[in-house]
Amino acid sequence: MQNVKTYILLFMFIAIGNWAHSQSHPKLILTQKGVKEIRAQIDQLPLMQSSLDKARAFVDQEMAKGIDVPVPKDMAGGYTHNRHKKNYMLMQKAGVLFQITQEEKYALFVRDMLLEYAKMYPTLDVHPVKRSYAPGKIFWQNLNDANWLVYTSQAYDCVYDFLSAKERKTLEKDLFRPFADHLSVDSPQFYNRVHNHSTWGNAAVGMIGFVMNDQELIDRAFYGLKSDNIKEDQKDNDGGLIKMQGDGKAGFFAQLDHLFSPDGYYTEGPYYQRYAMYPFVMFAEAIENCRPDVKIFEYRDSLLVKAVQTLLNLTDVNGLFFPINDAQKGMSYLSRELVSSVNIVYHFGGEDPGLLSVAEKQGEVMLDDTGLSVAKAIKEGKQRAYQKKSANYGDGASGEEGALGILRAGKADAELCLVMKNSSQGMGHGHFDKLSFSLYDNKGEVLQDYGAARFVNIEQKFGGGYLKENKSWAKQTVAHNTLVVDRISHFKGSTDTGNKYHSEPYLFDAGNEQIQIVSAKERNAYPGTEMHRTLALISDDKFEKPLVLDVFKVKSDEEKQLELPYHFFGQIISTNCEYQVAEPLTKMGDAYGYQHLRLEAEGLTDEGSAKLSWFVNDRFYSITSAVNSEDKLLLVRSGAEDPNFNLRRDPAFIVQKNQQKEAVFVTLIESHGKYDRVTEFADNAFSSISQVELLLNSDDYTAVSFEDKKNNKWMLILANRDAGKKSKHQLRINKTDYEWTGAYHYVPAQ
Amino acid sequence: MQNVKTYILLFMFIAIGNWAHSQSHPKLILTQKGVKEIRAQIDQLPLMQSSLDKARAFVDQEMAKGIDVPVPKDMAGGYTHNRHKKNYMLMQKAGVLFQITQEEKYALFVRDMLLEYAKMYPTLDVHPVKRSYAPGKIFWQNLNDANWLVYTSQAYDCVYDFLSAKERKTLEKDLFRPFADHLSVDSPQFYNRVHNHSTWGNAAVGMIGFVMNDQELIDRAFYGLKSDNIKEDQKDNDGGLIKMQGDGKAGFFAQLDHLFSPDGYYTEGPYYQRYAMYPFVMFAEAIENCRPDVKIFEYRDSLLVKAVQTLLNLTDVNGLFFPINDAQKGMSYLSRELVSSVNIVYHFGGEDPGLLSVAEKQGEVMLDDTGLSVAKAIKEGKQRAYQKKSANYGDGASGEEGALGILRAGKADAELCLVMKNSSQGMGHGHFDKLSFSLYDNKGEVLQDYGAARFVNIEQKFGGGYLKENKSWAKQTVAHNTLVVDRISHFKGSTDTGNKYHSEPYLFDAGNEQIQIVSAKERNAYPGTEMHRTLALISDDKFEKPLVLDVFKVKSDEEKQLELPYHFFGQIISTNCEYQVAEPLTKMGDAYGYQHLRLEAEGLTDEGSAKLSWFVNDRFYSITSAVNSEDKLLLVRSGAEDPNFNLRRDPAFIVQKNQQKEAVFVTLIESHGKYDRVTEFADNAFSSISQVELLLNSDDYTAVSFEDKKNNKWMLILANRDAGKKSKHQLRINKTDYEWTGAYHYVPAQ
Repeated sequence: MQNVKTYILLFMFIAIGNWAHSQSHPKLILTQKGVKEIRAQIDQLPLMQSSLDKARAFVDQEMAKGIDVPVPKDMAGGYTHNRHKKNYMLMQKAGVLFQITQEEKYALFVRDMLLEYAKMYPTLDVHPVKRSYAPGKIFWQNLNDANWLVYTSQAYDCVYDFLSAKERKTLEKDLFRPFADHLSVDSPQFYNRVHNHSTWGNAAVGMIGFVMNDQELIDRAFYGLKSDNIKEDQKDNDGGLIKMQGDGKAGFFAQLDHLFSPDGYYTEGPYYQRYAMYPFVMFAEAIENCRPDVKIFEYRDSLLVKAVQTLLNLTDVNGLFFPINDAQKGMSYLSRELVSSVNIVYHFGGEDPGLLSVAEKQGEVMLDDTGLSVAKAIKEGKQRAYQKKSANYGDGASGEEGALGILRAGKADAELCLVMKNSSQGMGHGHFDKLSFSLYDNKGEVLQDYGAARFVNIEQKFGGGYLKENKSWAKQTVAHNTLVVDRISHFKGSTDTGNKYHSEPYLFDAGNEQIQIVSAKERNAYPGTEMHRTLALISDDKFEKPLVLDVFKVKSDEEKQLELPYHFFGQIISTNCEYQVAEPLTKMGDAYGYQHLRLEAEGLTDEGSAKLSWFVNDRFYSITSAVNSEDKLLLVRSGAEDPNFNLRRDPAFIVQKNQQKEAVFVTLIESHGKYDRVTEFADNAFSSISQVELLLNSDDYTAVSFEDKKNNKWMLILANRDAGKKSKHQLRINKTDYEWTGAYHYVPAQ
Repeated sequence: MQNVKTYILLFMFIAIGNWAHSQSHPKLILTQKGVKEIRAQIDQLPLMQSSLDKARAFVDQEMAKGIDVPVPKDMAGGYTHNRHKKNYMLMQKAGVLFQITQEEKYALFVRDMLLEYAKMYPTLDVHPVKRSYAPGKIFWQNLNDANWLVYTSQAYDCVYDFLSAKERKTLEKDLFRPFADHLSVDSPQFYNRVHNHSTWGNAAVGMIGFVMNDQELIDRAFYGLKSDNIKEDQKDNDGGLIKMQGDGKAGFFAQLDHLFSPDGYYTEGPYYQRYAMYPFVMFAEAIENCRPDVKIFEYRDSLLVKAVQTLLNLTDVNGLFFPINDAQKGMSYLSRELVSSVNIVYHFGGEDPGLLSVAEKQGEVMLDDTGLSVAKAIKEGKQRAYQKKSANYGDGASGEEGALGILRAGKADAELCLVMKNSSQGMGHGHFDKLSFSLYDNKGEVLQDYGAARFVNIEQKFGGGYLKENKSWAKQTVAHNTLVVDRISHFKGSTDTGNKYHSEPYLFDAGNEQIQIVSAKERNAYPGTEMHRTLALISDDKFEKPLVLDVFKVKSDEEKQLELPYHFFGQIISTNCEYQVAEPLTKMGDAYGYQHLRLEAEGLTDEGSAKLSWFVNDRFYSITSAVNSEDKLLLVRSGAEDPNFNLRRDPAFIVQKNQQKEAVFVTLIESHGKYDRVTEFADNAFSSISQVELLLNSDDYTAVSFEDKKNNKWMLILANRDAGKKSKHQLRINKTDYEWTGAYHYVPAQ
């Protein structure tokens, strides 16, 4: 049935194709109507005018230096790589400048540079650096070549009418058509899969197809190659199987169908979703302009609109993406991909006024019809604050392959945001961190995910590519805030195994202001071991800021060593443990990331709760964890077995329970107080918590409590096997009977 | 002769005394005339209005909680300490609020709190925490008690006329007079010395003396106690001799005569100068108001005006004080002491419009006549950018005990500031870092001084006091960017020995935009070893930012191990050394700070220059140092032997030359390039320097050169024994003859 629908759709596209292609240029991103309006209104629209000025300043400065189209030679970060990257950005902007300002010099610049490329391209073999599973010709990997074409097709569209028919013929014959072919028919392992790389490929081929009015390329973009001969076990550079997703389908619609969950969550995580969004939204804008009949922005229940909204919600207070999986920290919604996404989704996706406040922060708009809409709306004062929210985003094409849970509470200085990763593996860029979480406040990371071990585009660091420590440390379980059993990573660190499974979301309830809760189980990371973690964000006037309560239940069929790390930053202020500092410092193990950790101190406490307080960014934080007198507390730091100094030296606190078949880690995390370096006043520098306790643990129920120093006591009971909202429960704890309805029962202090 | 003058002056003061004291209140900081003007104009002066609103918000909030005057018990950071500190600030502000707003509730609040103190004070013995060489009664140390009285005397002045004669009598008899006596006659070791502690004591006693019209206290403030029986070897908590400075003199004029150099530099460094300024400027304002005949702001060639200007110049681009000697990082000219200093010096010291721009950044003015001047001038638009400059500040009362050299070059993103410490020891808070330097750009520290090992007012860290690692690490030579010989600190780490000597400034020339230069010699840090360091800040269009050239010449009477550390931040990007990483990590020594360092890697290079590039704050930096193939390059990190985790884990790069009687370290430091985490573009990420060389070294001359990757070559020749500006020199290097006039000859690339 699905197939029949697809063919009908395909037929309709072909039928309407000729009409669409009869439009004159520009028609891809800029339209003739849009250009007219921009020219008429731009001097009234400060945001658009400054975006134009910025583009003009950049292009003018570079034009003055002359055209340089060097023979490809370098890896990412090297000269020829950076030069070609700059060239495509320059051409794209110069094309737009030509359309808006009507100054011929910009068209001439694009023309001359394109002709240089057309002269060089036929002489090129694949790139001399042979490090990619799919090498490009201009860059070391096809992915970058696809980027080149996505941008350059826009430039070509802008100067199309300016060029002579002969020039167009040369460009299309010597450059664009063979370029599109190299990305697709010559590189099926790159083009014909469901993957962000292929999305770039599809968009590149489709966009140049629209400009050239080449129906074959457009079809290839929409539906992929008809045959590809990709082997079943063929893998990419990141170790991901080429043919893992999408049931063998390919092309842009397959990407839309399979790469996102129905909530618009992209399985690799926000850093890659950000990167992937650009070809999605740009090609979608091109489709909407050239083929409005497709109604691409309504496709799959307005998937692209949801994807952008979801992506914006996957940021901390300052707009930085949560760095789960392979992600370089610092990437934010200020990136150019998000400028496009926000503009396009505002214009084509219902004009959400919240998006305008993000656009204001970006301080830049697209120089096209969508940027015009945004700049006009801001000028008219339509912007509203963007409301980030607690949300549980289903993962996988069906939305049923785990979820990413986000809890937010508190305002301004007191804002806390917790991200719990109950999703699927996330393909080649996924980390082995089932049920892990990370914590953010309005200054940034509090309990960190290490992110990727990579310096993107910094050539000295392995050409800007993934460092080997990315695999040996950053992906490993111990680099995350989640449980490590017997010092082995989840799925023994095998992406192929990880790809087969996902965690099982058990409970998500953000409806109660006092306590928001997310809970999930994981049965496959360690065969024979069941893990069930519940994280709650508790708001109570008795505390300055929300608290995080972490209840991590483990049950195994044999005795295990259990280690639960918390990765923090900054300096230790105090602990209640009696510890021995290590001297000398040695690496903690030989595998699964432990070879990169050094033990700095090891301690015990007989106070029932182990406490660590630390200080960073002029704030205080404390962890209090229920322990017995045999549990060990480890203070560790990354940076061992790191001959190239690729890793940061970051600390972590590990709670270790030994030789247990069953255990519950109960931990409370406080963010409290602040320090002013100018007045030298310390406020609320001490933890308020005196005790954290496990009250009861059975297969059916887990009950925990915590107490503050004024003897106020809070309790949380979790039903472990029935999360039904209407289920009734009854439980006796310490001679008191509790009755409640729903998956959990929270009893705050009076 | 000096003595005769002093007595004449003293006589004049006494004669005029009665006139001055006949004024009614307020008269100390606020004046009756000032209050009238403030009331009339404040609603036209936004900066003053907001300062008043801020004070009112703070006082109203605290007044609502009621008065709490607890029996003294805690160390710094503890409850009673913080409470009494808050109380004096509250009273001072409430007093001012009463005067300006004329709302009686503020006067009642001050009165009631004062009466509580008057009730408690007679019952108090010295503070129960016996940790100070001079314990207070309200606080663990008299220093804090003096603070209390400096603030509270202002409050008393503001409510003086409001109180009944009986109330005044109670307060003066039970509280103020005995309080002043405890600070002075009961604590000569605190009061009767030349030291910042005593300045607080003098100001406190003098200020309450003015308010009470108590000539005995005023005289005691001006000239100290007549006798004190302090023993010659008596020391304070910091190990400083009580009677080290001032030739046995004491009192406020002795502080002015001895604590500052003629340039207004305070020997302990800017962090303590900032702290010390408050009693100086406040008491000076009081003297100017109550005894205008003294002309206190003209005293010693307008010393106080110079001191504030010098202090403002001892900050980096962002206004943070250079953290030399014992200093907590983050302290800046936004501190309340600098608000007072800037306001008072603007008003009484010549109305420098540059001060107004600092006041604007402070965003607050004093609620007195001086703040009124500042707020009015800003309202009138008189402010000008504050111009920081290169300067060489003489140290010691005579200005001839060494100097602190500051070189600045570059604008905005390219600004660099170098601080070279050629001063005297700096008393008990001094570090053993002769000829050390630190480097700053517009984002902050580049090559750091560790600062103090202390968490001021954070109780968990030794009550907020100096940690033992302050002595064992922060003060030691290896914690600084200067030479360590045979792994022993300067003066073997003895403050008493260090106090006897100072470095000898050899050359300071900031008059040439191309090359600014500071040079000094040190002969006493290591008996038998002469050190001569020259630092140059070179500006050249061929480089993005100024360069630092470091020429460190050493000559010893026997073979020594020489180690020159550079303390940086962030992650290592690349090095040209062939190094072995250490495994396991062990501490490097047992003393002089080496016990706190771990060797992480050790290397050699036969390329003639060793190079290290690192990355921090999204910028790149490189050090290139001329080495031979036997010199060792060490990568080390602090944090060993640190059982309480008191130290940061910061990296350093050490150039080690072994068994040498004579050596020259020639090193070039570049700040270059930047990285954008949103665009992921790296600009200018590579060092431009290919080679650094020592061309010639003799007792008379040292010649060095460096070369960039485009084969441009720069040369600097230094005359080592004749810094005369008019001296003529002639030297043959590699068959070329050079002739020049002056201490150095710089030959930039063509």
